[in-house]
Amino acid sequence: MTASYRYTEWETDRVSFSIEADSLLYSGQSDFQSVDVYESQDFGRFLVLDGWMMITERDEFIYHEMITHVPMAVNPAIKKILVIGGGDGGAVRELLRYPTVERVDLVEIDPMVVEVARKFFPTVSCALDDPRVNIRHEDGVEYVRRYEGEYDLIIVDSTDPIGPGKALFSKAFYEGCHRALNESGILVNQHESAFYEEEAGIAREIHGHLCRLFPVSKVYHLHIPSYPCGQLFGFSSKKLHPVRDLDAARWDALGLQLKYYNTRLHRGVFALPSYVEALLREAEESD
Amino acid sequence: MTASYRYTEWETDRVSFSIEADSLLYSGQSDFQSVDVYESQDFGRFLVLDGWMMITERDEFIYHEMITHVPMAVNPAIKKILVIGGGDGGAVRELLRYPTVERVDLVEIDPMVVEVARKFFPTVSCALDDPRVNIRHEDGVEYVRRYEGEYDLIIVDSTDPIGPGKALFSKAFYEGCHRALNESGILVNQHESAFYEEEAGIAREIHGHLCRLFPVSKVYHLHIPSYPCGQLFGFSSKKLHPVRDLDAARWDALGLQLKYYNTRLHRGVFALPSYVEALLREAEESD
Repeated sequence: MTASYRYTEWETDRVSFSIEADSLLYSGQSDFQSVDVYESQDFGRFLVLDGWMMITERDEFIYHEMITHVPMAVNPAIKKILVIGGGDGGAVRELLRYPTVERVDLVEIDPMVVEVARKFFPTVSCALDDPRVNIRHEDGVEYVRRYEGEYDLIIVDSTDPIGPGKALFSKAFYEGCHRALNESGILVNQHESAFYEEEAGIAREIHGHLCRLFPVSKVYHLHIPSYPCGQLFGFSSKKLHPVRDLDAARWDALGLQLKYYNTRLHRGVFALPSYVEALLREAEESD
Repeated sequence: MTASYRYTEWETDRVSFSIEADSLLYSGQSDFQSVDVYESQDFGRFLVLDGWMMITERDEFIYHEMITHVPMAVNPAIKKILVIGGGDGGAVRELLRYPTVERVDLVEIDPMVVEVARKFFPTVSCALDDPRVNIRHEDGVEYVRRYEGEYDLIIVDSTDPIGPGKALFSKAFYEGCHRALNESGILVNQHESAFYEEEAGIAREIHGHLCRLFPVSKVYHLHIPSYPCGQLFGFSSKKLHPVRDLDAARWDALGLQLKYYNTRLHRGVFALPSYVEALLREAEESD
């Protein structure tokens, strides 16, 4: 089969990552962004929003396992969860592996993302019809403002701070999340990366907000082949420490079969490269 | 400045990583391979051998710190070291930070790599004139055959198994390394990656050889932005365990200022994603 489409993502103005795709399965324009789905040999199908690759069938497991199982392993009493963004359903799928989870509210601003995920990414969106899931298409910033002490866990599964995702990086939004969490609440957020200057500036700013709001504010790292610059997630909490409060034996006893996450890795990923530590320290020490 | 050269590296036949370079500073053909040096805004200068990017000024610290300080922190009694490949001098530079190191033999088959590093990468090759360094331009496989119990540490800082680097992935070569190490000897090797099928097959094969030769044979992972598919290094040893035998307080007391390596990260990087663990287990369990 001849490759007929080349998808290119620019890491900087001069550094790019490209995938030759066999076909463009869908191309639409929602009220918020352009939505494209490609089919490729190496990454399977992949979803592109406003020109930025969001998930690929081949490596989405890394992102989705790491954004969910880290908090779930720290607090097995989590019952009520809010996912902001994440309209593809990958985070929801992982959360619903836990029979103890009672409710997942998915607040995805763009209905087209959910429709496209249901149609083209069945292995990712497969849990969206579970009766424990409530999908709402509204603005995440507005949504969290209405709640106080409601959630055990909030996951900010956002795009980069461009287009509709931009407000999900603001101080006001994180304050809203803090208020919407209960006293043992955990916030996990897409935290950009620390290598290229632009993303590193955003990562520093996010950490500056979170470390002032939450008594526990840590960052962990993972590596997704289709995000070459590396990926950070934030773990902020009102009480629980991501490593000291992990009861690995209890999580291991659940017998979940995953492809990336395990409890040894859980402890490992909170140990950061020195240049990332330095970046976070700058945020903590600035006024 | 207008970008005038586009360097593209193919991860697979259909997935590529590109850097727009401002200029091509050098392009030569040695007896072994083509050698090119580009200048770019995002990665500084970068060295390309037979079309494959070897190091960039901007992120070489990750590779070179991790291939050296991990074994050095496990055994501070290391005095005699053999580096095979690594003609750019980056591994040598890191090793010579330790005043306890008495000798580093650098066996780089291709003199042009050393010449080009001296000329175009002064921050990488800066330690090559240290009196403790002996440079030999010969075949690494032949070289190790002549030694028995000579070295405390061997570092295989090789290219991928293409061109002159191919023999550095053979069982016979690893057997030679085992023999050339003394009774507490450590072997650290470039171990490819586990994501794409082709590299994963090589990683499995390498681990199959090493886990049969050495009583301790572990793998650690790191992330280099210019190697999007991820990087594994092997740590094999006749006696020392890379995590249990790490004395973090002792290493921290040395006061080395590094950008990536630290002793918390050292413990963290031996915790592998489940799919990498599964790949290594396959190698261990196969006949």
